[in-house]
Amino acid sequence: MNRKMVFYTTGHILILEAALFMLPLLCSVIYGEASSVIAFAISAGIALGIGILMSAASYTKNKLIYAKEGFAIVALAWLAVSAVGALPFVLGKFIPSYVDAFFETVSGFTTTGATILDDVEALSHGMLFWRSFTHWIGGMGVLVFLMAILPTDSGRSIHIMRAEVPGPIVGKIVPKIRETAKILYFIYIGLTALMAVFLLLGGMSLFESLTHTFGTAGTGGFGIKNDSIASYSPYIQWVITAFMLIFGINFNLFYLIIIGKFASAIKSRELWCFGAIVAVSTCAIAMNVHTLFANTSEAIRHSAFQVASIISTTGFSSSDIIINLWPGFSKMIFLTLMFIGGCAGSTAGGLKVSRIMILCKTAKRDLNKMLHPRSVGVVKHEGRVVDSATVSNASVYLIVYFLIFFVLLILISLESFGFETAFSAVASCFNNVGPAFGAAASSYSGFSVLSKICLSFAMLFGRLEIFPLLLVFSPTTWKRK
Amino acid sequence: MNRKMVFYTTGHILILEAALFMLPLLCSVIYGEASSVIAFAISAGIALGIGILMSAASYTKNKLIYAKEGFAIVALAWLAVSAVGALPFVLGKFIPSYVDAFFETVSGFTTTGATILDDVEALSHGMLFWRSFTHWIGGMGVLVFLMAILPTDSGRSIHIMRAEVPGPIVGKIVPKIRETAKILYFIYIGLTALMAVFLLLGGMSLFESLTHTFGTAGTGGFGIKNDSIASYSPYIQWVITAFMLIFGINFNLFYLIIIGKFASAIKSRELWCFGAIVAVSTCAIAMNVHTLFANTSEAIRHSAFQVASIISTTGFSSSDIIINLWPGFSKMIFLTLMFIGGCAGSTAGGLKVSRIMILCKTAKRDLNKMLHPRSVGVVKHEGRVVDSATVSNASVYLIVYFLIFFVLLILISLESFGFETAFSAVASCFNNVGPAFGAAASSYSGFSVLSKICLSFAMLFGRLEIFPLLLVFSPTTWKRK
Repeated sequence: MNRKMVFYTTGHILILEAALFMLPLLCSVIYGEASSVIAFAISAGIALGIGILMSAASYTKNKLIYAKEGFAIVALAWLAVSAVGALPFVLGKFIPSYVDAFFETVSGFTTTGATILDDVEALSHGMLFWRSFTHWIGGMGVLVFLMAILPTDSGRSIHIMRAEVPGPIVGKIVPKIRETAKILYFIYIGLTALMAVFLLLGGMSLFESLTHTFGTAGTGGFGIKNDSIASYSPYIQWVITAFMLIFGINFNLFYLIIIGKFASAIKSRELWCFGAIVAVSTCAIAMNVHTLFANTSEAIRHSAFQVASIISTTGFSSSDIIINLWPGFSKMIFLTLMFIGGCAGSTAGGLKVSRIMILCKTAKRDLNKMLHPRSVGVVKHEGRVVDSATVSNASVYLIVYFLIFFVLLILISLESFGFETAFSAVASCFNNVGPAFGAAASSYSGFSVLSKICLSFAMLFGRLEIFPLLLVFSPTTWKRK
Repeated sequence: MNRKMVFYTTGHILILEAALFMLPLLCSVIYGEASSVIAFAISAGIALGIGILMSAASYTKNKLIYAKEGFAIVALAWLAVSAVGALPFVLGKFIPSYVDAFFETVSGFTTTGATILDDVEALSHGMLFWRSFTHWIGGMGVLVFLMAILPTDSGRSIHIMRAEVPGPIVGKIVPKIRETAKILYFIYIGLTALMAVFLLLGGMSLFESLTHTFGTAGTGGFGIKNDSIASYSPYIQWVITAFMLIFGINFNLFYLIIIGKFASAIKSRELWCFGAIVAVSTCAIAMNVHTLFANTSEAIRHSAFQVASIISTTGFSSSDIIINLWPGFSKMIFLTLMFIGGCAGSTAGGLKVSRIMILCKTAKRDLNKMLHPRSVGVVKHEGRVVDSATVSNASVYLIVYFLIFFVLLILISLESFGFETAFSAVASCFNNVGPAFGAAASSYSGFSVLSKICLSFAMLFGRLEIFPLLLVFSPTTWKRK
């Protein structure tokens, strides 16, 4: 284990965070929010201080990293940015409890969007900006960002990328990792800008447009109003619906489109599967809730919005009738969509469509083998044979996923909120969605400190797809050679 | 596909069922219940008629069967015995609706114990006997029973046994399948007799003792009183607790004990794991509910009883305070125990302890492989290397299990019972437990016809461990060569 490299990179991430603090600081300056300016300045100072100390103390010429180091770097870096990212909320006295602020920040970076705030509108502009900005940073990943901007490419950073980018198959778009990271961020920034313009055209202010775009791009779901997106126009809601789905799609497809391979992009099986799930769910739910809204077009708009919001694991709400108040059938579909999640290589959470496809194909192959024991079958995905390591990784992911799920469920049920709240809260946080049912319908403020810590880890487990965080707690990971 | 052999064997199973109807018929004669006698007589006639016709029409000299035929025989036989087994309830006018009677009979044979009856005590003795007796028959399996009594041993019946006996690894105890089936039923009858004696010593009548023993031996849970076991003495409750656990243990271990290999039996890792889960759950729940009962000893008794009842997937209740009214933490542990279930090769349902152990070990091996890509690891269970087919079968089982689970969940949620009821009803039926939470706490009478049919199939899927029923609906299974 190359421990020095792990801490060295984590230090760099904190220095990067110090720089990122400058944006909300600037926002606070513009809006004349003195206490927020100070909070961000102190936080940036702390991040910079720890970051420089860590990097300097762990400087090493041996930059070699393997899978183990990749997992460790990602796990530690995410814990560090969350721990430090929570400081402004506490220092600005907007969220007095550090556990609450940690929950909120983890929720931001992991693009969950679960909040402990009952009154979001009480935050300063700077804090609202930071809160939404964490979604944007976490969406594509802090380490991918670092790779994109750092001048060196060790050639081994694929291990970091694999550990941070969600999905069962993580490949390089182009041979060089650094270029891949740059392309991903280039697409990400492009789509972000496009969406911001669409929102500006709908009459939003620049601040509103940026915060909502950050929340959508990262498929996070933090809004700046207590009623989320409910008070915005149908135009705005449709724009957000479209972009929630767009950010739930594998970014490799956008790259294919950019380089002119439109036909290849449109052939993606995962895309079609994702689209089919969205279409079927929207129709089923619209039929189920048509009496809940004034007319059919409203029912369709809200159904489409909420389906896009949940399957992309964003978590915005388009109506005062929050999904907790929708009929049981719709809620059960939403719950299922939470588990499915978006496409691999997107900013969305959940199990990911392609992982479920690989699991289903594995099941089909093995069922066939039970009938015809001598048959030899391979699992194919997007026209290519999936190697056995990826197939077994997907199965193992499912096993560990449900194991952790039940442990969290039992811990959360120590609170007396009842089954629906406990189950949906764990499902929502673990899949990085945000809103849940029952007592967690609008905020998580009523949960105990233990539950908040458990759910914070649920969010991290979900965003980092379990393995990095699990392996970093295993003693064998840290063994010196 | 040897179709003739499939129908031939299913015909035999129905003839066997006609013979089995004689026991409740006799019971009805003893208690002078004329309408029940007639109901059983007509049902036996129908079973015999269809059975003989099927067997005669499908007679074939080609008795060769493979995995495919094994799955098909088990699936069809179970559907047939359930469909015919429901007749006495309808003919006797005790359960007027056939769907209800089918649900009740499936619940019996699959050893679930979920009931649509709000007043069990309104049934005649003959009907109560049949209801409990279905548990006993289904516990060890109808086809295993047929194998034990039929004079021929085709040498291929291992495929039937693998399809009917629950658990990830189904082996022969002795080289001949017929002998293995005989030994299993020998142990089963022996333990049944032992338990009946213990209950008689506790002051139960012969009828009470037999029905409760059948319900326990099959880990079913149908009682003969509306309050289940609540009105019986602590002695009776402790006896049932002990035997629920005993029938949740792999029967191979009892064989080892019988042939004097006590040391081998006691070394079983699955047994220890099962015991540990029971002990830890009982302690956690007893601490959680100690204020609910009069004193500590009552709290421990009811906790131990309910833990044994749920993990063995029996479903008896020892207290007027049914588990639905226990605190959320206890309920969540019960829910987890429902999924875990008993040991492989027992009469219990659920995922089975050994399957979960194999899944965990697979996960551990593959996680290790992520850290050390060149490492070669094998999965061991009970000291032996598990072959790769078994390992991948366990993973596939988990995948298909949760897929079916979510489909059932969405279908059940078309009813407006709320999340807790829907989720726990599916979990309870799918894992062959019986009682659930919310509106399904005492009976399933309030559910719609669609839900009852879905839950009936959930029970069959659970008892037959999915694959036979899934494969029998696949067109490729029925293709002629």
